[in-house]
Amino acid sequence: MVPAGMQGIIHDFIEEDFIDVFVTTGATLTHDVAETLGFHHLQGEVDIRDLNDVKLHEEEMNRIYDVFLPNKVYEGIEDFVSKLTIPDYNMSVSSFLNFFGKELPENSNSILKICSEKNIPIFCPAFTDSGLALQLGFHHQKLNLNHFKDMLEMVNLAWDAKSSGVCIIGGGVPKNFIFQSLQFCPNSASYAIQITMDRPESGGLSGATLREAMSWGKINEKAKYSTVILDATIALPIILWYLKKSKYEH
Amino acid sequence: MVPAGMQGIIHDFIEEDFIDVFVTTGATLTHDVAETLGFHHLQGEVDIRDLNDVKLHEEEMNRIYDVFLPNKVYEGIEDFVSKLTIPDYNMSVSSFLNFFGKELPENSNSILKICSEKNIPIFCPAFTDSGLALQLGFHHQKLNLNHFKDMLEMVNLAWDAKSSGVCIIGGGVPKNFIFQSLQFCPNSASYAIQITMDRPESGGLSGATLREAMSWGKINEKAKYSTVILDATIALPIILWYLKKSKYEH
Amino acid sequence: MVPAGMQGIIHDFIEEDFIDVFVTTGATLTHDVAETLGFHHLQGEVDIRDLNDVKLHEEEMNRIYDVFLPNKVYEGIEDFVSKLTIPDYNMSVSSFLNFFGKELPENSNSILKICSEKNIPIFCPAFTDSGLALQLGFHHQKLNLNHFKDMLEMVNLAWDAKSSGVCIIGGGVPKNFIFQSLQFCPNSASYAIQITMDRPESGGLSGATLREAMSWGKINEKAKYSTVILDATIALPIILWYLKKSKYEH
Amino acid sequence: MVPAGMQGIIHDFIEEDFIDVFVTTGATLTHDVAETLGFHHLQGEVDIRDLNDVKLHEEEMNRIYDVFLPNKVYEGIEDFVSKLTIPDYNMSVSSFLNFFGKELPENSNSILKICSEKNIPIFCPAFTDSGLALQLGFHHQKLNLNHFKDMLEMVNLAWDAKSSGVCIIGGGVPKNFIFQSLQFCPNSASYAIQITMDRPESGGLSGATLREAMSWGKINEKAKYSTVILDATIALPIILWYLKKSKYEH
Repeated sequence: MVPAGMQGIIHDFIEEDFIDVFVTTGATLTHDVAETLGFHHLQGEVDIRDLNDVKLHEEEMNRIYDVFLPNKVYEGIEDFVSKLTIPDYNMSVSSFLNFFGKELPENSNSILKICSEKNIPIFCPAFTDSGLALQLGFHHQKLNLNHFKDMLEMVNLAWDAKSSGVCIIGGGVPKNFIFQSLQFCPNSASYAIQITMDRPESGGLSGATLREAMSWGKINEKAKYSTVILDATIALPIILWYLKKSKYEH
Repeated sequence: MVPAGMQGIIHDFIEEDFIDVFVTTGATLTHDVAETLGFHHLQGEVDIRDLNDVKLHEEEMNRIYDVFLPNKVYEGIEDFVSKLTIPDYNMSVSSFLNFFGKELPENSNSILKICSEKNIPIFCPAFTDSGLALQLGFHHQKLNLNHFKDMLEMVNLAWDAKSSGVCIIGGGVPKNFIFQSLQFCPNSASYAIQITMDRPESGGLSGATLREAMSWGKINEKAKYSTVILDATIALPIILWYLKKSKYEH
Repeated sequence: MVPAGMQGIIHDFIEEDFIDVFVTTGATLTHDVAETLGFHHLQGEVDIRDLNDVKLHEEEMNRIYDVFLPNKVYEGIEDFVSKLTIPDYNMSVSSFLNFFGKELPENSNSILKICSEKNIPIFCPAFTDSGLALQLGFHHQKLNLNHFKDMLEMVNLAWDAKSSGVCIIGGGVPKNFIFQSLQFCPNSASYAIQITMDRPESGGLSGATLREAMSWGKINEKAKYSTVILDATIALPIILWYLKKSKYEH
Repeated sequence: MVPAGMQGIIHDFIEEDFIDVFVTTGATLTHDVAETLGFHHLQGEVDIRDLNDVKLHEEEMNRIYDVFLPNKVYEGIEDFVSKLTIPDYNMSVSSFLNFFGKELPENSNSILKICSEKNIPIFCPAFTDSGLALQLGFHHQKLNLNHFKDMLEMVNLAWDAKSSGVCIIGGGVPKNFIFQSLQFCPNSASYAIQITMDRPESGGLSGATLREAMSWGKINEKAKYSTVILDATIALPIILWYLKKSKYEH
């Protein structure tokens, strides 16, 4: 999402108070940190005529579909991460991310920064599956962020919520992590939106219908729900525009 | 994969020594444990005429596309998990899974059991995104399995390997976790297979081409590689059949 | 396209002179005629809770994904078609469509009408694969519209064009019919746009890359081209808006 | 299908009496004729490292995903077609194809030949959308094969059938042509199989569910039906093997 230009969009969803709990991937955090530290993802082409991944590797330029990320970005992240003084090696991932966001420099688009400023909890269940965690692990060998604490906190948030709704972008681990927290709750989700290019027939959770989630009790049988088969980079700006328009017109 | 009937197939891949390191999702482990404890996934239909997820929820029957899983399976897992005596609350996830596999009853199809028996390392970077981890967390509140240790061990395995190859089923966190371990290695993967229904154009890692991974240095520029756009439940039995045939004919 | 609300959009592309030659399916023409005669496609839902195709059949309501078309629409088309006096049973399909458009009542959104008014040629290579052709065939048993004449005229148009560009929506027969006319021309297409949800890996022409078409000489090696993996009902309004904006600002 | 190696498979379906009426595309017929005349499709690679469509064009080698077809094949078809003496310029397409199949040389895999030999009707609603029709049109300028006659014959076949079932491979014009013939029949299809990589959500008929066809009365409400999201080149050999096994074991 961040490499595809969605950093500012997600930032604005949070700044405008449209998100109460943010569950994400390690990649989103890593790329957010890169941009926040002043590095950039470069827009490019995927035309076969111009594309040579072997040559890109020689030039230390990593490709993400039609976006290009220089290797030196990782050096910049490493530099920042290596100098951190982490207050507690056994804190939860979300507590760490709250701390980490405060350490980051000011940046008008940073997802981590705005979450820290507004104390929006960020959960990242697969945090160690990321370049950011790799750099943290290399330079803070005793780090053992408590993933189980996050898991239980997420369940408690869902349990205590008077009502809840979910908005899934893509699928994967964040989708399941949100849904498993709702499974045993007294109040399952009363609305649900899913924007994805994944389909049900391959059988994975990413493409599973929201209807299926009703059998699990993750989504309420009376919930309003909608699945949109669409690239999120097209959907999110339109949704944000509509939400802001609705918010300020009332 | 396990709900779709692939448990025995994956078990056989491991038993036949075709897998050296197994990286997987929490869901695969949870469903493997369910079957290993004697519970079953039920085959069903997705015909709209017969499908009623609200009614399924009332009957405590969870749907996974065309497979059905009774809620009582989770009670069975909970019962087993609650009685475990865990030797070290801060061990790595892979160490825990090795221990856990030994605790499981004998079962001819169990993935966790055969991995433990053959000491094949299992990595599960998003372990807390699973029903198995939920039950563990509920009953062992001090548990803080060290995810960072897994991450570093995986990098060390990749670093020390004289040669390596990867076989990706699906995508998601396991794909990235394998690839990030190869990114900084002296020897990137010399062959790669990817079986998925995901596509490159949505921009996520799951559908990204193996060619793209060359720009990152995760796959060697001289590697042999192939992506198969196919449901893994069709591909895996055919591949296993071919590998066994080739193995025993030589 | 017409059932999904694109009739007015396509009409405007033609009215604004953005289309020189229109190649289409029999379905597009049939649904355009239905709307032009004053019948309507109804917007609906595809929620399993509300959807019962057997009941719809009893109610004589035909479903097109989330659009609903009453059977009586076909009776209306039949009524109109049965009263036609066709000047030449052996004319080409495109000549017939030009004649037919003139016979249709005034309608501000009609694709056939605007094409007739502006003498934009419409080709429909699979015309007999449509409800409109069925009604024509039932009531004008001697009709033998000359499909070969259309094929040769399309080749001549492509041959005589000083330069050409193509915009493909979806794929199927229209895509191939345009491309086969370009295959043997001195001037292959110098630009090409393709908006589709089809993919190359199933091997069909619909999802084939525009790059592949260069090997056939259908698209020029120096052409500018772009494939957009997107639902056309999202893409077309945005493209029309941009084209009109560009046209009137210059 | 023929370029991907399915010629012999489809031939065998017909030879084994598993097909009563064959509805197909112009491309399938063109490529079948090419192979029947002794020309060949060449198997290749789609690795970006080796693929250069501009160079292929210079070498007069047309690409169909990972299959390659030399231009000279079209010259061979032209040569054969130019020498034909067509008995009736206004015959239906299916009558012409029956005649044409008899003219083709003996060939153990030819779809057109086996259909002619067994008098299995072949319908090709978009016949003029093909290289074969182009060559026919260039060399027999008076040709006006009667597409409407085919359309009405197909309706009559469906009308007179005591029972019917459909097997759809892919989608497109053949799917709709079969379904439109069933729409107004006393007996709609009592079973239906659909093997495709297309999906419902783009709204086109190719990916539409078989359930949707029930609202139209094309498929009977009590029909047995199944959609398989799978590349047909994987599905067809397995289905043929199973059908032959079942046939000869009884």
